[in-house]
Amino acid sequence: MKDINIEDFQIKSQIEIKNLATKVDLGADKKELKKALRDVSKDLAEIQNTMYAHGKYSVLFCIQGMDTAGKDSLIREVFKEFNVRGIIAHSFKKPTELELKHDFLWRHYIALPARGKFGIFNRTHYENVLVTRVHPEYLMYENMPDVKSVDDVDEAFWNKRFEEINNFEKHIAENGTIIFKFFLNLSKEEQKNRLLRRLDRPDKQWKFSSSDLKERKLWDKYQDCYEDVLNRSSKPHAPWFNIPADDKATARYIVAKILLDNLKNYTDIVEPELPQKEKDNIGLYREQLENE
Amino acid sequence: MKDINIEDFQIKSQIEIKNLATKVDLGADKKELKKALRDVSKDLAEIQNTMYAHGKYSVLFCIQGMDTAGKDSLIREVFKEFNVRGIIAHSFKKPTELELKHDFLWRHYIALPARGKFGIFNRTHYENVLVTRVHPEYLMYENMPDVKSVDDVDEAFWNKRFEEINNFEKHIAENGTIIFKFFLNLSKEEQKNRLLRRLDRPDKQWKFSSSDLKERKLWDKYQDCYEDVLNRSSKPHAPWFNIPADDKATARYIVAKILLDNLKNYTDIVEPELPQKEKDNIGLYREQLENE
Repeated sequence: MKDINIEDFQIKSQIEIKNLATKVDLGADKKELKKALRDVSKDLAEIQNTMYAHGKYSVLFCIQGMDTAGKDSLIREVFKEFNVRGIIAHSFKKPTELELKHDFLWRHYIALPARGKFGIFNRTHYENVLVTRVHPEYLMYENMPDVKSVDDVDEAFWNKRFEEINNFEKHIAENGTIIFKFFLNLSKEEQKNRLLRRLDRPDKQWKFSSSDLKERKLWDKYQDCYEDVLNRSSKPHAPWFNIPADDKATARYIVAKILLDNLKNYTDIVEPELPQKEKDNIGLYREQLENE
Repeated sequence: MKDINIEDFQIKSQIEIKNLATKVDLGADKKELKKALRDVSKDLAEIQNTMYAHGKYSVLFCIQGMDTAGKDSLIREVFKEFNVRGIIAHSFKKPTELELKHDFLWRHYIALPARGKFGIFNRTHYENVLVTRVHPEYLMYENMPDVKSVDDVDEAFWNKRFEEINNFEKHIAENGTIIFKFFLNLSKEEQKNRLLRRLDRPDKQWKFSSSDLKERKLWDKYQDCYEDVLNRSSKPHAPWFNIPADDKATARYIVAKILLDNLKNYTDIVEPELPQKEKDNIGLYREQLENE
């Protein structure tokens, strides 16, 4: 199996989305990839454990991609070895009425992982410059004072929104959150295959919704919006990674490896020591227990 | 390995805590128990998956036990095969200032699992009739209008608190929450061994706190309070199980088996069907995709 260089997947300069890979061959079959993923996931789980005890950093794992890109199953497999105690997954769907009564970042802010924990955003705050940008009429539900109709939504509006998102991430990064953002890059052809498979398999049919077909018709618009997201919001402290997603096993392995190789650099994540005062008394405590 | 009857562990009548087992021999070694647990956890993960798709029930997993009873590692192992998407663990520690500004059930209420999900309460609302009962002075932080000093805390107070807890559980059970409550029953002798081990192993020392020794001195008081909890709040819709906890591998297996055998009875938990309207159109949708 080929070694991968995680840098190859990081968005570091202006890109055109049509040039980003949706497929990559690591020279390994499904079984090898699965085994490799399991090993990486075990190493990640060890880091998770230490990070929990250390209690200073948190990890924010963001994942975006078109319908059927494999977000759910990727989360299931990448974090397979994790201790459920220290990881919380949030799926952000259509905002609730309560959420709409707040600014668009509010529901993400309150869902941020506590120190020591991993947080998963399955679909993220970026939906506010993706689905909302493809359907600007959704902005009307947000009741913003200065957006009275879609005609008020101009380039300046989206610039402001990107700036707000970038500032949000900068703030949490500066305060101890390690951010990863993954774009599961699926080809239009492979989405078709996967949608057909959902229709063909009676046990998968319930996952199908005719709205998936409506959104598919807006494929090019979504691609434009994704391109803008990748170009405007990939930062050293909050990088985007383009993950070729036409093969699920490959995508999962690459994502896990990116997490591991990055987190390994945080050499300050160690188990805490017992306070000196307690350490000095260990002999005493031991005696107390033994002589009960 | 012996078959277990999960009924043997359920508290169904008035008990004396000193008669409850802290040890049980299932005639299997550590490796066999680990393998058996893995199998049960896989079956549980399948139920979790279906329950998530079904989206009507939730599971509330409550765990209590003295320090070092093995709560954390039990959670890690029992839910090893779970999809992190559908399970949220909450460790309830000393209440925060915000939490103390609300009634004692508030922080538990807002942490309840959503439909389709599993929620873990690592230490639970029962701490309000355990640690708080052993240390009634803690009640002063709760700022209740009718409790001005510990002298106001009488039997009637605790009766009321138990009634409130029982009503809370009855309410959520009637609205779709499947409740399990596990008491990890550790012997005083085994706690001593485990505390000594924490002191002996430099990598485990940070888990030690001298307050553990202070609480250990109140062992008998805690046991009385646990006895009362088990006798007053084990209900068919919210049963307590006594889990012999002196051997960790055994305890984990028994807990997982109790979950599995109970959840298997919910035969109405199935994957949803595609709405009829969508079903009728499947041919059409397939055509649409194929003729793009």
